[in-house]
Amino acid sequence: MELIALNTVWVVIAAAMVLFMEGGFSLLEAGFVRTKNAVNVTMKIFVDLTVGALAFWLVGFGAMFGKDAFGMIGTTLFGSPEKIALSIQLPSAAYVLFQMGFAVACISIVSGAVAERMNFKAYVLTAALICIIVYPLSGHWIWNSDGWLAKLGMKDFAGSAAIHAVGGFAAFAMAKLLGPRKGRFNSDGSANVFAPSNIPLASAGAFILWFGWFAFNAGSTLDASNASLAPIAINTMLAGASGGTVALFMTMKKFGKADPSMTINGVLSGLVAVTAGCAFVSEWSAIIIGAMSGLIVIYATLLVDHLKVDDPVGAVAVHGFNGVFGTIAVGLFDSTQGLLTTGDFSLLKIQLLGAGVVMVWGFIGGMFMAKLCEKTVGFRASEREEEEGLDMSYHGIPAYNELERFTDIPTSLYDFEETTGITVAPVNGKEIAR
Amino acid sequence: MELIALNTVWVVIAAAMVLFMEGGFSLLEAGFVRTKNAVNVTMKIFVDLTVGALAFWLVGFGAMFGKDAFGMIGTTLFGSPEKIALSIQLPSAAYVLFQMGFAVACISIVSGAVAERMNFKAYVLTAALICIIVYPLSGHWIWNSDGWLAKLGMKDFAGSAAIHAVGGFAAFAMAKLLGPRKGRFNSDGSANVFAPSNIPLASAGAFILWFGWFAFNAGSTLDASNASLAPIAINTMLAGASGGTVALFMTMKKFGKADPSMTINGVLSGLVAVTAGCAFVSEWSAIIIGAMSGLIVIYATLLVDHLKVDDPVGAVAVHGFNGVFGTIAVGLFDSTQGLLTTGDFSLLKIQLLGAGVVMVWGFIGGMFMAKLCEKTVGFRASEREEEEGLDMSYHGIPAYNELERFTDIPTSLYDFEETTGITVAPVNGKEIAR
Amino acid sequence: MELIALNTVWVVIAAAMVLFMEGGFSLLEAGFVRTKNAVNVTMKIFVDLTVGALAFWLVGFGAMFGKDAFGMIGTTLFGSPEKIALSIQLPSAAYVLFQMGFAVACISIVSGAVAERMNFKAYVLTAALICIIVYPLSGHWIWNSDGWLAKLGMKDFAGSAAIHAVGGFAAFAMAKLLGPRKGRFNSDGSANVFAPSNIPLASAGAFILWFGWFAFNAGSTLDASNASLAPIAINTMLAGASGGTVALFMTMKKFGKADPSMTINGVLSGLVAVTAGCAFVSEWSAIIIGAMSGLIVIYATLLVDHLKVDDPVGAVAVHGFNGVFGTIAVGLFDSTQGLLTTGDFSLLKIQLLGAGVVMVWGFIGGMFMAKLCEKTVGFRASEREEEEGLDMSYHGIPAYNELERFTDIPTSLYDFEETTGITVAPVNGKEIAR
Repeated sequence: MELIALNTVWVVIAAAMVLFMEGGFSLLEAGFVRTKNAVNVTMKIFVDLTVGALAFWLVGFGAMFGKDAFGMIGTTLFGSPEKIALSIQLPSAAYVLFQMGFAVACISIVSGAVAERMNFKAYVLTAALICIIVYPLSGHWIWNSDGWLAKLGMKDFAGSAAIHAVGGFAAFAMAKLLGPRKGRFNSDGSANVFAPSNIPLASAGAFILWFGWFAFNAGSTLDASNASLAPIAINTMLAGASGGTVALFMTMKKFGKADPSMTINGVLSGLVAVTAGCAFVSEWSAIIIGAMSGLIVIYATLLVDHLKVDDPVGAVAVHGFNGVFGTIAVGLFDSTQGLLTTGDFSLLKIQLLGAGVVMVWGFIGGMFMAKLCEKTVGFRASEREEEEGLDMSYHGIPAYNELERFTDIPTSLYDFEETTGITVAPVNGKEIAR
Repeated sequence: MELIALNTVWVVIAAAMVLFMEGGFSLLEAGFVRTKNAVNVTMKIFVDLTVGALAFWLVGFGAMFGKDAFGMIGTTLFGSPEKIALSIQLPSAAYVLFQMGFAVACISIVSGAVAERMNFKAYVLTAALICIIVYPLSGHWIWNSDGWLAKLGMKDFAGSAAIHAVGGFAAFAMAKLLGPRKGRFNSDGSANVFAPSNIPLASAGAFILWFGWFAFNAGSTLDASNASLAPIAINTMLAGASGGTVALFMTMKKFGKADPSMTINGVLSGLVAVTAGCAFVSEWSAIIIGAMSGLIVIYATLLVDHLKVDDPVGAVAVHGFNGVFGTIAVGLFDSTQGLLTTGDFSLLKIQLLGAGVVMVWGFIGGMFMAKLCEKTVGFRASEREEEEGLDMSYHGIPAYNELERFTDIPTSLYDFEETTGITVAPVNGKEIAR
Repeated sequence: MELIALNTVWVVIAAAMVLFMEGGFSLLEAGFVRTKNAVNVTMKIFVDLTVGALAFWLVGFGAMFGKDAFGMIGTTLFGSPEKIALSIQLPSAAYVLFQMGFAVACISIVSGAVAERMNFKAYVLTAALICIIVYPLSGHWIWNSDGWLAKLGMKDFAGSAAIHAVGGFAAFAMAKLLGPRKGRFNSDGSANVFAPSNIPLASAGAFILWFGWFAFNAGSTLDASNASLAPIAINTMLAGASGGTVALFMTMKKFGKADPSMTINGVLSGLVAVTAGCAFVSEWSAIIIGAMSGLIVIYATLLVDHLKVDDPVGAVAVHGFNGVFGTIAVGLFDSTQGLLTTGDFSLLKIQLLGAGVVMVWGFIGGMFMAKLCEKTVGFRASEREEEEGLDMSYHGIPAYNELERFTDIPTSLYDFEETTGITVAPVNGKEIAR
């Protein structure tokens, strides 16, 4: 038996798990936002997995992994996945599928930060653009062997920088330009919190994300015979656990309550932060990285609020700030080149440069997409759409009709009858309010 | 190391993922039906995984893969899985487990179409019958090497015909004979739509199904060294993505809203349609097949409505019509024998025959089971049971008691006290309404 | 290619699946308890995966698998996972990760039985103690090759005794000392039932648990070339299916309703019961073991009620009683040493001893932890906290804010404003009731 068969199985399963993380994003966001926008965040994840995935397959993959030009961009566009040969023991189809999971994850990071007030068509456009250019470009710099950051020796094993920091800072720019949800900040500068609508759902999302993260990180070996595979997996576990532990204890101490949202985001922060270094650091280092990320997420969340940027799910703090921290942490904790482990400063400098570059590029990319949306399909939902909730506005249906026995909720407002000739029915014997 | 160890791991994991798809069916259906029937659809999935799985293990597997008689049926019944030897590098237990997942999926397709008005005992009987005879018989024709369709050269890699079309048309027959839910069609021939009760739950189901589908299709290799494994996986992804994309854009264009149910069903249609050909077509073909399925599901849904057949979740359109389409699509897009790819008409003729045969057999099987239920345990729920909701009628409990703080919902109506001597309690301090 | 690469992939994927079972526990419990405690049970699962996992990594693993002292305890403490070498073809990191999943599962068993009235800090302490000493100690006896029960020849393949019975009887002791939820038992000795709050959610949890159980049992081979791997997987399926079938039919016959909670617990009981013997019994034996467990869970549930011990999710009946039964069942059904299969009584005696030992140890461990909590952080929630619901008391947020459009639910009561300076907002335009 040849290694390639094992690698194929490994990477295909890992890809399926990474793509399943989209279900995690969907539940996490649907649980964190207000009920009236829960369908919308879910639909955005479907956009990621459909429009986004096709856009990456068609263009983005070639822009990222195609023949290099000037260390800046790949040039093998349009359906290139079938054309690009790999130097590793893995069928290209498995590699492309796995990379599709990464591209789609990068969009989904953005989806949370812009929740509850973005124009749906603008989101479709954004999803395509991230997969076509924003993610592939910096991805090329870091992960294409001819990319300029790769050539400098930047280390980002599974994408704290290439995926999370880029996505997180694109999210930051877009959330900033989009402006806050109505009522989020007061005229005196103070902030309001909208309570999450469904904690068990959000938690289910977090568990799915954690499950998928084992594949996200360990799958990035692309090679089952890589001796780092098992260490990566346990580092992933330990960092998530310590991130969650610190956030949990901090909220108990600071607020007197064990806060669910912050604990979940603490876990996710640990996972994000260890993503760059999972193959390069010891188990103890993974625990420390996770613990620090659990602190960072709390203060980053307060900072984003302070900057009057409205991020309904904490995506900027989790993915942006901890993506950057995780990238830098490689320079500190890398077993063979880390400053704290070896006293060598050279890797840290490269990591700092790389982290800075992806922050800036993510931010620019986000601004660019926001501006393009503004000029074309419109960036922000109208005041009326936002007030009514994006679910009814864009999808014609509320998330939950569980109450039909008790209330006269309008269950479908769109002009279904006129366009199809089918009558929208009374639900359980009650007329729908119009 | 021998290949058989790798194949065992691969197929056992794939089987677990396929069986996990039942959780997807459960959530999808619970989210699509009205709240008062959400427990019932969930319990039906448990019937599939318990009664159905045992029935298949005991009888169905041998009827499908046992020693052939006349190309029509296997004859190694009763606990045969332990007796049948395989010619492939795979322990028979792994093979049987994987096949159990397929049989159970075939029932679950039916469960959606008959939701909200079928007698629960009739469903138990139906689940057993599908696993004992309906699915194994046509399965034998297509997948037993001595089956008559297999001998003709019919290609159905992972079961667009053998699982989805058979299940979908059995569902069609049963839904037709069962009659529509009360209030579904008006006397003037127009149709009413009952709004899905829980979109985030339905979406979670769709994400689980998509995750499992990678195993459904790629796992059907049964062999990790099969060079088609990775191409199958990416074809699965691409077809699901393009099916969802087309359905999404069509509803935006046609109805002015991005419809969640139709987008979900578009994704599932792409997955169903590529299931037959995933190992035989190019990536571009997978995208085209998916895109066509996204159109088909919309018009098929309207057609089923037009025929006054009530299918609460769209199972007939998704699995029936796109199962048939996917079977035929192999004849069009097969890389070595497809009409469009090679100009050869011969495979298409066989695929058309096979598709027609499974449609007819599925429909006959559904009629037979419906009639048998009618003669024995009763086929349709009583008017009172349907009105009250099948949850309270058959299971004595509503799906959601989240509201106990606000309303006086009866939480358990069945004669628990009388039969057990245990008093059913006031919930959160409020007396249960009786 | 060497076997170790395959084993690494196999065990890492299995570990991820076992750890994902925590999501299953979370949803199962959140669905089974009353709405006002759904966040709390979810947060307890996060404690398991964070605090518990770290405690096991730091101390428990070494106490379990470290250098033996007197057959009683391992002595390689504090970060030992990196130090302990394995005699099998598997990197130690993969082994430790898989074992972390088991330790965490053992806590989660306890979490269900103590739901709805335990002090949250006491739970954090309990989670740590189970992972540091309770689970590792008996685990050492059974699974460390130098453990005294292992040396006697006790067979417990994947932990019916080492995980489920220990956890189940620790849960029993703690639930007993904690006392019942307010209103659970009447002064005349009769019992009240609190209806589960969310059946579709609980079902989703059960499906995730079933999915993970394939890895729990088959992953325990730790070796992909183990010829029992596929038989273990199918035995797992068959026992779960027959446990669910029997519980389903029993409730239909006994109560006139197909009861969801009992069917779910029947499935889980079959899975628990076959866990010890999955590698040692035939498929028919697995079906019989599962069927018996489906009976046992019903009568054990009634017995626990009769003893006035309040177990909100049935964890004692499922994991405790069926863990013990499964351990004993190996002595009855083992293919080479079982009493019923070979007439040999010797293994059964050892299994009876082992089952008795873990019952007693689990119970003592539970009592010890309960007493320690009482002396330190306080064991039981105050009457006011319990009445208000643990969600608001400990976490400051209700599980579901879906109703914000219809009611004036307080969405966040904790002193968020005072501690952070951030104003908690009016939700959807309505002032929060204070």
